[in-house]
Amino acid sequence: MSRNALRLALAAAILSSVAASFAQADEGMWLFNALPKKQLKERYNFDATDQWVQHLLRSCVRFPGGSGSFVSADGLVITNHHVGSEFIDQLSTEQNNYIRDGYYARTRADELKCPDLELNNLVTIEDVTPRVTGAVKEGMDLAAAQKARQSEIINIEKEGQDKTGLKCQVVTLYQGAQYHLYSYKRYTDVRLVMAPELQVAFFGGDPDNFEYPRYCLDFCVFRVYENDKPVQPEHHLKWGQGLKEGDLVFIAGHPARTNRLNTVSHLEYMRDIQIPEILDLLRRLEVALNSWSGRSPENGRRAKDDLFGIQNSRKARTGGLETLQSPEFMNAKVAFENEFRAKIAADPKLQGTAAAFQEVAEACQSWAELRREYNNYERGFAFETKMFGFARALVRYAEEVGKPNADRLKEYSDSNLPSVKDGLEAPVPVYPDLETVKLRSSLTNWFTEVGADDAVLKQVLDGKSPVERAALLIAGSKMHDTEFRKELLEGGPEKIRASKDPLLELARLVDARSREVRKKYETQVEERLRQAYSRIAAARLALGGDDIYPDATFSLRLSFGLVAGFEEGGQAVPAFTTFAGLYERWKLNDKKDPFHLPERWIEAESRLKLDTPYNFVSKLDHIGGNSGSPIVDREGRIVGLLFDSNIYGLALDVGYTDAQCRAVSVDTRAIVESLITVYGAQAVVDEMTR
Amino acid sequence: MSRNALRLALAAAILSSVAASFAQADEGMWLFNALPKKQLKERYNFDATDQWVQHLLRSCVRFPGGSGSFVSADGLVITNHHVGSEFIDQLSTEQNNYIRDGYYARTRADELKCPDLELNNLVTIEDVTPRVTGAVKEGMDLAAAQKARQSEIINIEKEGQDKTGLKCQVVTLYQGAQYHLYSYKRYTDVRLVMAPELQVAFFGGDPDNFEYPRYCLDFCVFRVYENDKPVQPEHHLKWGQGLKEGDLVFIAGHPARTNRLNTVSHLEYMRDIQIPEILDLLRRLEVALNSWSGRSPENGRRAKDDLFGIQNSRKARTGGLETLQSPEFMNAKVAFENEFRAKIAADPKLQGTAAAFQEVAEACQSWAELRREYNNYERGFAFETKMFGFARALVRYAEEVGKPNADRLKEYSDSNLPSVKDGLEAPVPVYPDLETVKLRSSLTNWFTEVGADDAVLKQVLDGKSPVERAALLIAGSKMHDTEFRKELLEGGPEKIRASKDPLLELARLVDARSREVRKKYETQVEERLRQAYSRIAAARLALGGDDIYPDATFSLRLSFGLVAGFEEGGQAVPAFTTFAGLYERWKLNDKKDPFHLPERWIEAESRLKLDTPYNFVSKLDHIGGNSGSPIVDREGRIVGLLFDSNIYGLALDVGYTDAQCRAVSVDTRAIVESLITVYGAQAVVDEMTR
Repeated sequence: MSRNALRLALAAAILSSVAASFAQADEGMWLFNALPKKQLKERYNFDATDQWVQHLLRSCVRFPGGSGSFVSADGLVITNHHVGSEFIDQLSTEQNNYIRDGYYARTRADELKCPDLELNNLVTIEDVTPRVTGAVKEGMDLAAAQKARQSEIINIEKEGQDKTGLKCQVVTLYQGAQYHLYSYKRYTDVRLVMAPELQVAFFGGDPDNFEYPRYCLDFCVFRVYENDKPVQPEHHLKWGQGLKEGDLVFIAGHPARTNRLNTVSHLEYMRDIQIPEILDLLRRLEVALNSWSGRSPENGRRAKDDLFGIQNSRKARTGGLETLQSPEFMNAKVAFENEFRAKIAADPKLQGTAAAFQEVAEACQSWAELRREYNNYERGFAFETKMFGFARALVRYAEEVGKPNADRLKEYSDSNLPSVKDGLEAPVPVYPDLETVKLRSSLTNWFTEVGADDAVLKQVLDGKSPVERAALLIAGSKMHDTEFRKELLEGGPEKIRASKDPLLELARLVDARSREVRKKYETQVEERLRQAYSRIAAARLALGGDDIYPDATFSLRLSFGLVAGFEEGGQAVPAFTTFAGLYERWKLNDKKDPFHLPERWIEAESRLKLDTPYNFVSKLDHIGGNSGSPIVDREGRIVGLLFDSNIYGLALDVGYTDAQCRAVSVDTRAIVESLITVYGAQAVVDEMTR
Repeated sequence: MSRNALRLALAAAILSSVAASFAQADEGMWLFNALPKKQLKERYNFDATDQWVQHLLRSCVRFPGGSGSFVSADGLVITNHHVGSEFIDQLSTEQNNYIRDGYYARTRADELKCPDLELNNLVTIEDVTPRVTGAVKEGMDLAAAQKARQSEIINIEKEGQDKTGLKCQVVTLYQGAQYHLYSYKRYTDVRLVMAPELQVAFFGGDPDNFEYPRYCLDFCVFRVYENDKPVQPEHHLKWGQGLKEGDLVFIAGHPARTNRLNTVSHLEYMRDIQIPEILDLLRRLEVALNSWSGRSPENGRRAKDDLFGIQNSRKARTGGLETLQSPEFMNAKVAFENEFRAKIAADPKLQGTAAAFQEVAEACQSWAELRREYNNYERGFAFETKMFGFARALVRYAEEVGKPNADRLKEYSDSNLPSVKDGLEAPVPVYPDLETVKLRSSLTNWFTEVGADDAVLKQVLDGKSPVERAALLIAGSKMHDTEFRKELLEGGPEKIRASKDPLLELARLVDARSREVRKKYETQVEERLRQAYSRIAAARLALGGDDIYPDATFSLRLSFGLVAGFEEGGQAVPAFTTFAGLYERWKLNDKKDPFHLPERWIEAESRLKLDTPYNFVSKLDHIGGNSGSPIVDREGRIVGLLFDSNIYGLALDVGYTDAQCRAVSVDTRAIVESLITVYGAQAVVDEMTR
């Protein structure tokens, strides 16, 4: 309790300073084409040369939902275990449980091809702001503006793709004040080389998640292939020598989303509606999956990956909510906004901006009204399963491919279509029993939200209860069968439309309503927010100089900061942990789940260098999506992998402070020591450190 | 999945027959003073003689939240482990963990006195309906009627107590159509004799809870003392010889609450509002406690008892909600109600009843409007901790004792005051760290429900965030300290009022609002429901003959039924499991939590008679509160302890069917075999079977 009390008192004290200044201390998720070079030079006497920057940029890869980097001349890629685990899971079966037992390919022939893993390696960034914003003409209403902008974006992406052969994505920055075209080399043959056991990668499980000190070996290694041969990337990161407290470090990765530039009314919407509702959803699924998981080891294996994601989000959102409920935090945000609005009012050039704050509030109001329908239909919360996801993708594919590229739903544009098809045809395991548990929970909740008399609900339930209907839908559908999906896709729109698969029928049944609410959301919420925020952001840029970075958007960013411990409850928490600490925590917790260790680790205790630095914390600015990001030193050599925040870092969604917020990383020295001593994987070490 | 699909299809098919007839098959939770003797005679050729009935009645005891029975001449009482676990937990420490390790008192001197356990042994039942209903005069408004009735009830209880020295409680039956005075002998010196390890008592944990086949040794044994000597009860149950499929059995116990006589509008309120909201609450606490529990074994020990209760309720409520969302179930209820209302309309004597259905609907509407305030303030959901509970009890004690008995809040009436004081002075362990986790979750949720600008919330938070404030309140309060509470209580109202303990201040701060909303709830909801339902129930009794039992009210009831397996997914599930099945399930689940076994059980495998009947199912009607009820044979000898429902039994709250709903019990033969072979507790066996 005293730990909690102090933790929170301190957190609040810190948060009160959040909004008082812009980029404080080591704050910032910087664009690679707009790095704070002057700041780096002045504060740390560091020259971010073009060569240094370009080498780092080209060495990075984007995983689905995370980050990674090339670390050998023959295409080895390193990331977090929890970023790779979805794909390791897809390779696993009840018999070959690589999640539980780990995996090591002793030869290249043993490297296991992931059925559904695409990596993106950024090649170029181009500012396309004038073209995108120019597409929206004076006097267009929200729907017209949204359509014009989206069509232009689809065209830019298509042109880029046609010209370069790269996967092109227009990234929205500063909430719409800037648009940059990111072009990626796309790798789709990615093979598993080495993964430790989940139990050491995620030692301490949910209870230790977001805590520090930590003891997680959260890494795994893949190799990228092209034409069945290991790829030889132009750039890969060299292996560093290790860090000490006080060293300057950098991360390059893909922070997914932050809300730091949000107005107060938008933060209130998040606090009062958005986060509480998503927490209810997450807890509902967590409890359902946890209970089902416990019924047998195989159930546990099937649900593990879903459960990790759910618990991780739940803990992160809980921290976010607690931050937003802090009056000190909110008061600071209000004070900042008032000051900012006063400056706007005083500047004749920014006349048009004043109304934008009210427009954000109105957009949030529309959001509040639309949200349940939008979530249930378009985000699919009412049918929360992989199988419904496939069914919807097929139904929409059949509708969209016949339209002109610029008129399609954006995820079905030509530049994105290969990824959609790959996803549908990937031979990933789907477990109907697990799907039933999820669909049952989703339909039950949808029933509560809309009431028994809702016309669409009644059509979907067809006279059955949600529980019965969920069981019948999943039992009757073949959406879990890759071959079946492939056949439909190859048969084309006609064949898809003719199929009576019950989940396809469900997806068709709700599609009109779903598209309708999506349209409303895209215009009444997204477009209004974009128009308002782009003016607010432009005013910030105009008033605040050039030390303002855009909120995270899952595009490549650079952060910098010092390796540093922190204080908690009056006690200093050192920056580094060691293997010795791992074994100590194991013993203190009776060696029991989630603190048990794999057999191999128990045996290795006497042989390991127990003082090897294991996990460490730094002031690096970060957020979810940064997981797996390489941490590099001044020479650009990899010295760690970011894998988590400490508990104070859960505030980073809405504001940065460096007093206690820390990024938690695994030290590359621990990776090397364990590869050699525990896994006998000297070859991997040799290749990475060559 | 196929199991789920079939399970649910069958469940729905069965449920459709629920409301079609009144007491079907072995349905019924019968009053001891109104047993269906004719039915028993006709169907099972069983004579429920007065002697048989009286012996059973007097052998039963009521636990807080559960049931039990005397099973020896020297005051041994047997119940479920999960009924006794709260009290075993209160005797446990980090060093002496009787929950984890079990306990066996080899001598009477080793029997451990429970700090806060009161057992009630029913002595007499008296019909006081005319007196209670007579207190409400024609023309009284809701508030006056509520007050008049409650005062009369308090007076009846006080008179009973003064006359007999017994604890007297007026029990509301048929939702207010009848009132009976139950007089109990109150035992407050109860000592732990024997408890198995939680891990075998609750083998399979939450995942196996409400499932069958089952393998739980869910029993424990206490001894009742008076004047420091074992009590010699007038009646105790003799030990039976064991059962077989098809045998007729009975349970006598305290089903806590059913809603079978609810109108359709009331069931809709439960379905659409009440149950979904309580599920959100339960899941929120479950997730918070689960995550905190995992941080260390000691955290786990501290939270275990709370967590069990939460998970158990969550699973039960989920089943209840799924039943209410079944159109077949609800359509059957609607059909029954329509038919019933047609009969009422046709009967001139029941003219006054027709409007009652609308009154129930209106009361539910008022409930919907009041519920959040009522839950947060009066039920204390906003401050969900033991420490706030103590603080409120002290604050109210100080206010209430000065009032005339009949004017007090009913739980502070003279007849209940000894229990209130015992509760406050009991040296039960309270863990401030666990309390902080719960208060933090509660305040965070309250913030979301009322919004940042709520005046009382602001006063309570005092400029802090819910998380900070929770930590400060608990850290600053001494409500966990028994001596402190005792001092305040002994100091009397003056001293309590003068204390600045922050939780006392909180309880004072919210008390006026809380009493106000309670008053509204008691009149607008409770009283209206009582008035309407008492007319509906009277009409049922008038139209339906005498085979109608009242909904459960935690008063002693008798149910009867056959030992019988059931069918699931086309497979026959046999009635009995054995120890052999226990070891099989243990191995199939890799011997891992929640399927691990205590060391003692692993060692005993070779010595145990593995074909000993272990758990069994029967058609006995039951609900939560029946846990620990003795199951007796035709001779009134104990042959088992009811401890659970199977999954279909979760529908029993709102309706009984016997196709798949089953009561799950532990066989007394397994208790004997394990006491002798695993625990070396021959003495306990000798005493019980003497």
